[in-house]
Amino acid sequence: MERSESFGKKTDGDRTAAGGVQTVDNAGKEEIESVEKIFESKEVPPWQRQLTLRAIFVSFILSILFTFIVMKLNLTTGIIPSLNVSAGLLGFFFVKTWTKFLEKSGLLRQPFTRQENTVIQTCVVASSGIAFSGGFGSYLFGMSEVIASQSTEANDPKNVKNPNLAWIIGFLFVVSFLGLFSVVPLRKIMIIDFKLIYPSGTATAHLINSFHTPQGAKLAKKQVRTLGKFFSFSFLWGFFQWFFTAGDNCGFVSFPTFGLKAYQNRFYFDFSATYVGVGMICPYLINVSLLVGAILSWGIMWPLIQNRKGDWYPATVSSSNLHGLQGYRVFIAIAMILGDGLYNFFKVLGRTILGLYLQVRNREVDILPVNGQPPSAAAVSYNDQIRTRLFLKDRIPNWVAIAGYVTIGVVSAATLPHIFHPLKWYHVVVMYIIAPVLAFCNAYGCGLTDWSLASTYGKLAIFIIGAWAGSNHGGVLAGLAACGVMMNIVSTASDLSQDFKTGYMTLASPRSMFVSQIIGTAMGCVISPCVFWLFYKAFHDLGSPTSQYPAPYALVYRNMAILGVEGFGALPKHCLTLCYIFFAGAIAINGVRDIAGPKRARFIPLPMAMAIPFYLGAYFAIDMCLGSLILFIWEKIDKAKADAFGPAVASGLICGDGIWTLPSSILALVGVNPPICMKFLSRRTNAKVDTFLSS
Amino acid sequence: MERSESFGKKTDGDRTAAGGVQTVDNAGKEEIESVEKIFESKEVPPWQRQLTLRAIFVSFILSILFTFIVMKLNLTTGIIPSLNVSAGLLGFFFVKTWTKFLEKSGLLRQPFTRQENTVIQTCVVASSGIAFSGGFGSYLFGMSEVIASQSTEANDPKNVKNPNLAWIIGFLFVVSFLGLFSVVPLRKIMIIDFKLIYPSGTATAHLINSFHTPQGAKLAKKQVRTLGKFFSFSFLWGFFQWFFTAGDNCGFVSFPTFGLKAYQNRFYFDFSATYVGVGMICPYLINVSLLVGAILSWGIMWPLIQNRKGDWYPATVSSSNLHGLQGYRVFIAIAMILGDGLYNFFKVLGRTILGLYLQVRNREVDILPVNGQPPSAAAVSYNDQIRTRLFLKDRIPNWVAIAGYVTIGVVSAATLPHIFHPLKWYHVVVMYIIAPVLAFCNAYGCGLTDWSLASTYGKLAIFIIGAWAGSNHGGVLAGLAACGVMMNIVSTASDLSQDFKTGYMTLASPRSMFVSQIIGTAMGCVISPCVFWLFYKAFHDLGSPTSQYPAPYALVYRNMAILGVEGFGALPKHCLTLCYIFFAGAIAINGVRDIAGPKRARFIPLPMAMAIPFYLGAYFAIDMCLGSLILFIWEKIDKAKADAFGPAVASGLICGDGIWTLPSSILALVGVNPPICMKFLSRRTNAKVDTFLSS
Repeated sequence: MERSESFGKKTDGDRTAAGGVQTVDNAGKEEIESVEKIFESKEVPPWQRQLTLRAIFVSFILSILFTFIVMKLNLTTGIIPSLNVSAGLLGFFFVKTWTKFLEKSGLLRQPFTRQENTVIQTCVVASSGIAFSGGFGSYLFGMSEVIASQSTEANDPKNVKNPNLAWIIGFLFVVSFLGLFSVVPLRKIMIIDFKLIYPSGTATAHLINSFHTPQGAKLAKKQVRTLGKFFSFSFLWGFFQWFFTAGDNCGFVSFPTFGLKAYQNRFYFDFSATYVGVGMICPYLINVSLLVGAILSWGIMWPLIQNRKGDWYPATVSSSNLHGLQGYRVFIAIAMILGDGLYNFFKVLGRTILGLYLQVRNREVDILPVNGQPPSAAAVSYNDQIRTRLFLKDRIPNWVAIAGYVTIGVVSAATLPHIFHPLKWYHVVVMYIIAPVLAFCNAYGCGLTDWSLASTYGKLAIFIIGAWAGSNHGGVLAGLAACGVMMNIVSTASDLSQDFKTGYMTLASPRSMFVSQIIGTAMGCVISPCVFWLFYKAFHDLGSPTSQYPAPYALVYRNMAILGVEGFGALPKHCLTLCYIFFAGAIAINGVRDIAGPKRARFIPLPMAMAIPFYLGAYFAIDMCLGSLILFIWEKIDKAKADAFGPAVASGLICGDGIWTLPSSILALVGVNPPICMKFLSRRTNAKVDTFLSS
Repeated sequence: MERSESFGKKTDGDRTAAGGVQTVDNAGKEEIESVEKIFESKEVPPWQRQLTLRAIFVSFILSILFTFIVMKLNLTTGIIPSLNVSAGLLGFFFVKTWTKFLEKSGLLRQPFTRQENTVIQTCVVASSGIAFSGGFGSYLFGMSEVIASQSTEANDPKNVKNPNLAWIIGFLFVVSFLGLFSVVPLRKIMIIDFKLIYPSGTATAHLINSFHTPQGAKLAKKQVRTLGKFFSFSFLWGFFQWFFTAGDNCGFVSFPTFGLKAYQNRFYFDFSATYVGVGMICPYLINVSLLVGAILSWGIMWPLIQNRKGDWYPATVSSSNLHGLQGYRVFIAIAMILGDGLYNFFKVLGRTILGLYLQVRNREVDILPVNGQPPSAAAVSYNDQIRTRLFLKDRIPNWVAIAGYVTIGVVSAATLPHIFHPLKWYHVVVMYIIAPVLAFCNAYGCGLTDWSLASTYGKLAIFIIGAWAGSNHGGVLAGLAACGVMMNIVSTASDLSQDFKTGYMTLASPRSMFVSQIIGTAMGCVISPCVFWLFYKAFHDLGSPTSQYPAPYALVYRNMAILGVEGFGALPKHCLTLCYIFFAGAIAINGVRDIAGPKRARFIPLPMAMAIPFYLGAYFAIDMCLGSLILFIWEKIDKAKADAFGPAVASGLICGDGIWTLPSSILALVGVNPPICMKFLSRRTNAKVDTFLSS
């Protein structure tokens, strides 16, 4: 779930979010002279013709694909890498083969332009973004009975709302479009006036631009072929694994690679192609932080705390009970996440205010302290001239945006209390008044740092609205619902600003982008709940800690809401002290990182990343480190090739395994169970089992 | 065990035995002009200096390595590929690093020559040859109680002799040197007068020659590095697998890759690096034949016969009882092996006699009908002049050979009856009178066709001596012992003729070769029994049909002896009829292959290869076909690279996995058991086991 905070979108000096395009900032200077000259001869189609039917169709297909992938990631670990590159590649590939085919048959009426490509990209991002901001792995699923029953507090009917296709779709429709309208008036300020960088958006634009030059198209073709190869491999591997998973703890996902003792402490390699791919996309630092966190928690702390069993916590409680060891795992992780989030919230807020202040006082002053590259505002380049002209051509009137926002806000305030009874209309109205400010903050901060704080704003809403509603009036549910409302607005605002930057650099019309975003959001509001529903119905143990799909953040979010509403009373012994220590530690590590400077910060782990394995264990960290290792060795052997094809390999691995979940969940739905269990037994147990079976 | 008959040494038009050097015959013409010119400047050291201490030391190390590998292959499936290339590569590598090291320290007194390399090669072949001809996977182990107890006939003490380090070493010493002496007088006739090709020997010589040219040394270095990489991989993979094999049917070796049903019919991929490597060395035809045989037997026939359970054979007998299904498996395989062997015996015999006749009548006539290349005897090339001169320089007097043969023959005839009581001195004497003729036939046939019939001669001895001794006087044991005596002589004769051909082409002195062979044979007589002993003591279920080391040919050989002595009375219903059909079928297929011509014969399977999976199942055939497939794809992608590095990859895979058996058997000996069992259960069984374990 913490995608926007720590994964993919965070530039740590070594790699940018898009993974594949490593030279955003450096290339930014070089390309100034050339790009639009190259494309000079190509006519930019009017906005209506950028929005083709084929683009929408391809977007639809890709949206389903990426929703599956994001949903799987949501429900397994909550770590979601940036899939922009694969979306760009696949969009290009689909339309290109389609146009090639038409060209041969002589039916091609309209060539494939980079504007159309941007429209697809935007639509897919908008749609699959809902799979993340819809909270299927966090606040929304955190309302359910499965998650509620894992703690003893606040699991009364007032605080529980089980997922249901109808209300989820309704809920998404009334909250998802607000962010879209809130960002429209800000568009010009962010992109033209402030000239914000938006690293991910810039990277994607570079990618799309490069695809549409002749040699770029050739490379893209090779990349697509690589992606396809690893897609097939990963899909088939997922298929093969399936056969051996009849029962719990069966199959490759339970492979005790480093022995049974290590397996019990969740140190094993689980043969997940997805997370190996994710590891190849995420910066090394993230992967190493995960491993450090895993060693610190499952390697050292939990075994030590387990020794206090019966003293610190009752010996009788099960391992998944929040009053036992599980409590330490969950609450210490929450403490670290909150500490990191709070630090960065104030840091980005401070920088935003400072940036704004400087911007207003003097437009010429350096507003990019992070990337260290003052925009040379004096000489407006040829690229910028062309881009600005086209960007300002197809305006969307501000009154449309404001009218849209107010209308949807009213509808939303009227309907939301019907969906979530503890959430009152005045809660919603207050949020909608504050939200545009926060959306602006987030879009601006994201433009500066590539760091979206959507889930931190969401957590703030949990605490504030939760406490306001109060424990007797279903505060937990109200808090989670408020989190959803806030996250949707704030996350959409930053995502779409990134898209507008991409559009600006590829000469896509803001109007076609806006329509594409509306279409994408509408698609997402239907696709995401349906995909979630498929998972929910197919895998009955969804959300239980030992399941294949533990949905870790659902429990974390719910417990945050409980903490906000009920206080710290229910925590096991010494847990609160440990939480304070880790909360402070997270802030301190962030401080040290900032003081040390980017060079040394490369070697200081990220508290946010460290916190995730606290709850989940080391297995996915090991997958991801393997991905890192593969990329590292590849870069040592052939840097150019690794840079060009690494993201394609990673995307292939992620997409193939992700899409396998579609047939696998359908198989589960229709009751086809895998035939074999690959079981791992200790020698002693095996002897017992053999005697049992032969008797 | 059937190495000499069908694996490695058989050229089927597509690949030669040595695997790596594909252009023996074609290159043979081209190299005529050049090779010895290239080496003209290099002095050939006198024979004493070809036999250096370092060469013997390296030979000793490599002998141990290859004995382990051959022993493992003996005891698992009996399929042994030609390891000449890896022996050549590794020998080169060891001495080269040693001399490099000395050169740097300024202590090098003698450079590494190709003659020295040949000496190492010869010594290793002689030594590891004993691991095969010693019969540890066939006749010798077939005498043991473990094998005898698997059938109800002839398992009285008179017909059983359990392995014991002392008598095995003694036995090998008295029989292994005879072949060596018998081949010495023939040397000149075979190589100089008849100019026989000896494809394997020629290939090895080309390899060694190429190593010692500057660019050859560079390629060899790269090959060695590849070999090393795959060696490590294969070794570590073996090590990793070990952890999961606590108990029967545990670990990757029992992986039901194609489902449990297929696994029960022994169709699965058992993740054996060895057999993937073996598949890469063996010709495609062999691998496909194995698969065809597996499908025919385990896929079709055995399931059909199993349906007749209770009708054709008693339903009460266990699956490993020779009166049940196992009987069909073993005896039909024997019928095919005998049919194929007999056909080829008469074919090679006929060709030998024809060749000899033509040779004697007219030396100019084409004596190479198989390879189709008449030697241009008219113009003796520069290469041949040099080679012949050196080959004839260091003669070994014929009286030495004859005296040696007679002396050892007498010692042997006196001692053998003490080791095997049913074997009388006159049996031995008769064999020793016939043996030189058969040795000559085999060496000559092998020179023509690269096809050694050692085990067929051995089988003849089983039947003849077994019947002569009679069932009441331990005929089974006598037959098996006679088989050993015959096989040792005949197999050594052809192996060493190959070596002499290699020596001829690398200007190695026959005298140094002879001494090296004596040293190698002596080494082998000690190393092989010791390695076997290690296996025997470490793996207690050695030889049982379900074991990791079933030693399939031990049972086959014993049952041949029983057949020879007792007749067909004990076979289950219809088994004899099926045996006749398959015996005739094997002959017919061979006939069709010969009539069809080499082009179409490529698509007709070899009966000998088909017979092996009859008893063992499809798993190793699947491994080997995977090896074929890898090589096939590799050749499609980059033929040059595949040709240069394929054999190195294959050797690495075989050697690494083979040498892992050393630590694994030591671990088993000292009682360290693997900690985990990777078990494969059906869904239903798994549910039962889960209930059992949780109760």
